[in-house]
Amino acid sequence: MDRLPPIAFYFDPISPYGYLASTRIEALAARYGRQVDWRPVLLSVTVLQVMGLKPVPATPLKGDYSRQDKSRMARLMNVPICELRHPDVSPIRALRAFLWLKQRDAAQAARFAKGICAKLWARGEDISTAEAVLHEAALQGLDVEALRQGMESPGIKARLREEVDHAVAAGVFGVPFFIVDGQPIWGADRLWMLEHWLEYGSWDPAP
Amino acid sequence: MDRLPPIAFYFDPISPYGYLASTRIEALAARYGRQVDWRPVLLSVTVLQVMGLKPVPATPLKGDYSRQDKSRMARLMNVPICELRHPDVSPIRALRAFLWLKQRDAAQAARFAKGICAKLWARGEDISTAEAVLHEAALQGLDVEALRQGMESPGIKARLREEVDHAVAAGVFGVPFFIVDGQPIWGADRLWMLEHWLEYGSWDPAP
Repeated sequence: MDRLPPIAFYFDPISPYGYLASTRIEALAARYGRQVDWRPVLLSVTVLQVMGLKPVPATPLKGDYSRQDKSRMARLMNVPICELRHPDVSPIRALRAFLWLKQRDAAQAARFAKGICAKLWARGEDISTAEAVLHEAALQGLDVEALRQGMESPGIKARLREEVDHAVAAGVFGVPFFIVDGQPIWGADRLWMLEHWLEYGSWDPAP
Repeated sequence: MDRLPPIAFYFDPISPYGYLASTRIEALAARYGRQVDWRPVLLSVTVLQVMGLKPVPATPLKGDYSRQDKSRMARLMNVPICELRHPDVSPIRALRAFLWLKQRDAAQAARFAKGICAKLWARGEDISTAEAVLHEAALQGLDVEALRQGMESPGIKARLREEVDHAVAAGVFGVPFFIVDGQPIWGADRLWMLEHWLEYGSWDPAP
């Protein structure tokens, strides 16, 4: 039997909902014989530049709602979460490091991405600086010196821009965002919908 | 035993997701011994004025996503839906009529609200004009002449503004929006979350 197409999983570490989904996507995919293709996106590009909106935390009403909601979603999903202690957090370096790792070992890159999301949202640590990124790499036993050089290379910087352009071209605007078999699905609160597709391969109601 | 507090259900007929939720909320509430308090809100106020965003259909990427998504959500929920054939649709008159009816008979007003949502989204008919609103009222056997006068009274116009102000003060920004036991829940894709609260009264994972 042919291998089933992977689930493209678009993440940006600055999204708490992306973090929540990052704790579930691998197990969900595995239950249905799918691989997960972790792909970076930048909400600073999609939300601000492409959609012309403002960041959710800075949006009246919705900002307060999402701060409250992320905590109860985490409780429902039984994963730790903390308040964002680094309001100026930048995911750029972490995503460059992720892409450099992915060129070598996609599974290791996915573990690194999960670790970066958890560093920010479960442990409340900054992920913006090179030191913070490399600290996570060291915890995972990676070659820190190779990563330090790789994540700053011009090729990787260009690659992140290309990846974000690709995501936008694919219609990705929020995080988490899943694309499976051409079906776009947005939101940690839509894991049920992703699972429905994985199980039935259609949008007919469950039999 | 004391009666359980009702579920406040905020709707705006122009939202397809509000329509989808309108087909389920009464049965869901009834299963848990709750009443539904139907309350009007205007996305033209919350989204444009309060949040300073643009309408979802006019938002790059998200507009296309929501057009596609509403159809598959309807299919999953086994309810009919059609494309919006009246892009300049206004919910103002329908919501004034709803409020006038609600002052007299809340259950009848809820049936009228459901009918207006279905008129726009299941049958693809306009709901903007007084004639369209009164036609729905006539179909439901209501006193059309009394409603015609009532829905245009200054008191009802002021009442709609107050209701929208009240909704904003309660943190309502999208549709459908539910508030139950002080818990705000947004989205037709969060009916599972509303049900979780109704069943367990907490955000702990299901036992």
